Amino acid sequence: MASNFKLVLLFFLIHLTFIRVSSHQHHPLDPLTPAEINIVRTIVIDSNPGSNLTFQYVGLDEPAKPVLLSWLSNPTKPPPRRALVITRMNKKSHEIIIDLSAHSIVSNKVYEGHGYPLMSFEEQTAASELPLEYPPFIQSVQKRGLNMSSVVCTTFSVGWFGEEKSPRVLKILCFYTNGTVNFYARPLEGITIVVDLDVMQIVKYYDRLDIPVPKAEGTEYRASKLKPPYGPRLKGATIVQPDGPGFTIDGHTIRWTHWNFHLSFDARAGPIISLASVYDIEKSKFRQVIYRGFVSELFVPYMDPTEEWYYKTFFDAGEFGIGLCAVELKPLADCPANAVFMDGYVAGGDGKPAKMAKVFCIFEQYAGNVMWRHTELGIPNQTITEVRPDVSLVVRMVSTVGNYDYILDWEFKPSGSIKVGVGLTGILEVKGVEYTHTDQIKDDAYGTLLSENVIGVYHDHFLTYHLDLDIDGHDNSFVKSSLETRRVRNNVSPRKSYWTVVSETAKTESDARIQGGLKSADLIVVNPNKKTKVGNYIGYRLIPGSAANSLLSADDYPQIRGAFTNYNVWITPYNKSEKWAGGLYADQSHGDDTLAIWSLRNRDIENKDIVMWYTMGFHHVPYQEDWPVMPTLSGGFELRPTNFFESNPVLKTMPPRHVQWPNCTT
Amino acid sequence: MASNFKLVLLFFLIHLTFIRVSSHQHHPLDPLTPAEINIVRTIVIDSNPGSNLTFQYVGLDEPAKPVLLSWLSNPTKPPPRRALVITRMNKKSHEIIIDLSAHSIVSNKVYEGHGYPLMSFEEQTAASELPLEYPPFIQSVQKRGLNMSSVVCTTFSVGWFGEEKSPRVLKILCFYTNGTVNFYARPLEGITIVVDLDVMQIVKYYDRLDIPVPKAEGTEYRASKLKPPYGPRLKGATIVQPDGPGFTIDGHTIRWTHWNFHLSFDARAGPIISLASVYDIEKSKFRQVIYRGFVSELFVPYMDPTEEWYYKTFFDAGEFGIGLCAVELKPLADCPANAVFMDGYVAGGDGKPAKMAKVFCIFEQYAGNVMWRHTELGIPNQTITEVRPDVSLVVRMVSTVGNYDYILDWEFKPSGSIKVGVGLTGILEVKGVEYTHTDQIKDDAYGTLLSENVIGVYHDHFLTYHLDLDIDGHDNSFVKSSLETRRVRNNVSPRKSYWTVVSETAKTESDARIQGGLKSADLIVVNPNKKTKVGNYIGYRLIPGSAANSLLSADDYPQIRGAFTNYNVWITPYNKSEKWAGGLYADQSHGDDTLAIWSLRNRDIENKDIVMWYTMGFHHVPYQEDWPVMPTLSGGFELRPTNFFESNPVLKTMPPRHVQWPNCTT
Repeated sequence: MASNFKLVLLFFLIHLTFIRVSSHQHHPLDPLTPAEINIVRTIVIDSNPGSNLTFQYVGLDEPAKPVLLSWLSNPTKPPPRRALVITRMNKKSHEIIIDLSAHSIVSNKVYEGHGYPLMSFEEQTAASELPLEYPPFIQSVQKRGLNMSSVVCTTFSVGWFGEEKSPRVLKILCFYTNGTVNFYARPLEGITIVVDLDVMQIVKYYDRLDIPVPKAEGTEYRASKLKPPYGPRLKGATIVQPDGPGFTIDGHTIRWTHWNFHLSFDARAGPIISLASVYDIEKSKFRQVIYRGFVSELFVPYMDPTEEWYYKTFFDAGEFGIGLCAVELKPLADCPANAVFMDGYVAGGDGKPAKMAKVFCIFEQYAGNVMWRHTELGIPNQTITEVRPDVSLVVRMVSTVGNYDYILDWEFKPSGSIKVGVGLTGILEVKGVEYTHTDQIKDDAYGTLLSENVIGVYHDHFLTYHLDLDIDGHDNSFVKSSLETRRVRNNVSPRKSYWTVVSETAKTESDARIQGGLKSADLIVVNPNKKTKVGNYIGYRLIPGSAANSLLSADDYPQIRGAFTNYNVWITPYNKSEKWAGGLYADQSHGDDTLAIWSLRNRDIENKDIVMWYTMGFHHVPYQEDWPVMPTLSGGFELRPTNFFESNPVLKTMPPRHVQWPNCTT
Repeated sequence: MASNFKLVLLFFLIHLTFIRVSSHQHHPLDPLTPAEINIVRTIVIDSNPGSNLTFQYVGLDEPAKPVLLSWLSNPTKPPPRRALVITRMNKKSHEIIIDLSAHSIVSNKVYEGHGYPLMSFEEQTAASELPLEYPPFIQSVQKRGLNMSSVVCTTFSVGWFGEEKSPRVLKILCFYTNGTVNFYARPLEGITIVVDLDVMQIVKYYDRLDIPVPKAEGTEYRASKLKPPYGPRLKGATIVQPDGPGFTIDGHTIRWTHWNFHLSFDARAGPIISLASVYDIEKSKFRQVIYRGFVSELFVPYMDPTEEWYYKTFFDAGEFGIGLCAVELKPLADCPANAVFMDGYVAGGDGKPAKMAKVFCIFEQYAGNVMWRHTELGIPNQTITEVRPDVSLVVRMVSTVGNYDYILDWEFKPSGSIKVGVGLTGILEVKGVEYTHTDQIKDDAYGTLLSENVIGVYHDHFLTYHLDLDIDGHDNSFVKSSLETRRVRNNVSPRKSYWTVVSETAKTESDARIQGGLKSADLIVVNPNKKTKVGNYIGYRLIPGSAANSLLSADDYPQIRGAFTNYNVWITPYNKSEKWAGGLYADQSHGDDTLAIWSLRNRDIENKDIVMWYTMGFHHVPYQEDWPVMPTLSGGFELRPTNFFESNPVLKTMPPRHVQWPNCTT
């Protein structure tokens, strides 16, 4: 019954969407609609009658860049609309391109290389239920004196550790909920369960250690379940925009006073920003900045080398899907009162479309900051104060990859800056241990004792952004402007030293790999074909933040797979196939299809259509404050116009009209 | 007449304040009231009858820390209230301590060392008017074909370049306003004017170069004077707090739900945060975090070594006064609608109190961000989403040191974090040049060509914060937790490497000097006498941002004076006299009284009352967007609780009540 009801709902939904689609011109970069996902499903299933296949990825196969650009310059006939589908069938990964207009298969090939596609929710759910009926596991639970009805299990990708060949497996870890919903806080430590996903069976099981399950007390985080004393009550507040929002959403195109861009949703990447262009009042037009920007991979290696933990070296984008793990945003909490929400759609493991409600919020952020200001007291008898309050347009998505919640922000500023922000919150991945006090710890515990029997294991988060910048045109160069100390010569003055800027244009990929602090260099993507009136190259620069590097050895398997974190910045020439820094088939990959490998070709990147890859990194030593749920830790980077405009582009942006404290009734 | 009117106003003001003071118990850290400033003036003038003295600094001589702490534990009798006064008289700096209760001089000594005190506004104004009556200068202006009535001049500290002894001088640069108020954009380049402040005379003058004055066009920034096209109009918005603000201000003590602190205003440092303590709901009490925090120095060296520019190596705190340069904040622009403003007072060069209106704003910042969140889908048939929207309490001051505007924020978070933010905006210091196009530039121009005849000269901003942390008590230690790569041994697992934390407690000052990226270490101030229940030392860590280092040679004069920027982090034992990283007498200092010199004593710092000094740095390569007024560039750092609490301190902070979109009439 319930299931039938769902079907009716789904039909209704698709019907509605059909109407919307027909009244709406697709943008070639729009994500697949539910109707299109259904078409894909039908075509794929029809072409493989009677076979038992699963859908691992269904998404837009976006037009090659030259095709899209030619459509942009002459938008009469849209480029062919295509889907990329990856299925598993007969223990093989199939890579299928479908033409959605012709309802036909463009190509269909079996992928023979290393690695596996995204795991679907359905197969992870199925796998996580296997232990619950598996006698040896039931015995393990009983041995620990625990109640099976309070056990929940969840799935973990296994990484790669030098195996020549390995089946498509994952590992299962189980937890104890009894008295808390924060089950991550209560691991059943010491049990290894390996499931082969293609046969959906437990293929390896051992119970090696007997470690106390941490207590439930102090782990609950639901307001409704917490007991006093409560924290002091914060005063309520809301943002009021009497004239409504300053932006419009037309399909997936967002238009604001100062920015236009396309916002898509992808099961793997989550938000994809395309065709972002900024308004230039002097030129009375929007000028290109980003062709396409998204999180290409999110590498999260843990630092416990022991049997039960060593493999935890997750690729959250390529294994679990940042978009698949997106959660429904909570109005007035995840986003402020003036936010507008947008839904997304993904294909399930069965290929059917599934709606993901409120997957994005978009809002104008009035944080009370200052766009620019100056007070001038230097002219006799005059006091001049000019201040422009700042406003940003923020696009937000939250991806909860199991325990961790990633708050992913794209913030567009009237000044032309784009700030990319990441907030880390959610639940730590913890290890059950014997210790109840640090005095008992004699060896390396690979983490911090957060509570009795709980170690917060050391780990990193590396978010690698694919930033296909098109700075006022497609052909760009990468310039490293190093700040170098010079001695003052010829007794020009009593000064002995100063620094100056030595700019170097990267010719090939190897010139553009940059590691670490990046402290004494400005990193600029310029358009070498365009100059300002006084002759500076038009550009945008990267202002890095949280630029931590991976500390794993280069020869270690996770680092071979995650070699795209060897540098914080890479530049590659545009290549449609180079989207995923850890490879298209990231799960159990061998590291033979990473950004680090592509970059070895050392291609020309000067005055080419180039892509910047920037890795934002966090080394996370957990502390007790992160327990049982972690206050947001923020990081980010900025892309800032650099001789892109002739002068301050918001000089003539008038302050918004003063909204007086309104007479409000709540 | 105008002057008499001012006097009446001043009297009225002081009278009013007298009333306020009498009804109010002083906090021993309160800044001097206007009445107290008048007392100081009277005492100082009366003790030097007939002499021609000027007041260079008048401020609270705060009680020594042990005295204040003993008052805190037994607040019946406040410590003696004292003022520190620095005057110039007979070409000598006099350092006078006054007891405000006894109306007596405690000590009065002539300072015989290198360097000079803060410059007063009055003497800077007087000096800047000298050229306007100085025939050689008038001739220089005429030679350039300019109109004297449009010339304004302003003052620049001269630094120190190895002179054995030098009189108390400053340099004057003059600019052309004609057609713009942005006079910094129009330097009369090539003229050197040196004024001896003690005799208030031009003592050196030469006009060496003839360089075009940049044009006025495109330099104006007043909304009322700008011509279309204007930037697109942003929608108005306001923040509504129907229940009013969540904080109270009692004198200079600010109490919020989660934080208590004292906010003082000082002519030199600007805002001083004292006795900041955070609420611990589990312990039902406020716990100490910061004894005293303020900007100790702001070093701004320019990178043009030529005759007219080499000396520009400013100490904005010690030469000009960050507080003296504070500007009146503009409601609804510098601070949001829910901000509360506070005034400050300084002594003028004549010793009389001067009110600085709206020198601080304090507001709860509802930026739409997330305090913590988690969505849990891992328990069958349950969807759990818990989100707490974030709120911060922000204290803001803006200091406009001539051309530059520094937005100085202290942001207190319910989670126990303190974020210190700096926004750089205002006007660049530019150099007039012959060039109108980059093609003409053959040699190093020491900056970026921003517009015809305008070079934005390369420079740095180093803000050195004095952070006397008292982490849950006064005796603290500094722990450097380095992240070190380890090889996996004994074939524990197929993993080859991991990182772990190696913690080292700094014994003496030399152990605690840290430079640069700080990427692979957590820097923690702990209380070695207190542990959490599971045995971790209670602490706070520094999360650095914008940690640029000075690139000047160590033997260069500005770097000798600015040697406190040799490291980003220093730890010293508390010493009342060690407040100003560049020395108490920073103007023309020789670098013999800096943090770097004090630290050479290499004192014990383990389990002592210690002070952290953190330098936030910006290398500023100007770009055309920074012209003619610069969009805010932001930086900051975070002090974050680190095993300070037993667990997430905002776990039980309930979301504020939902303020529905109100029915508002504007």
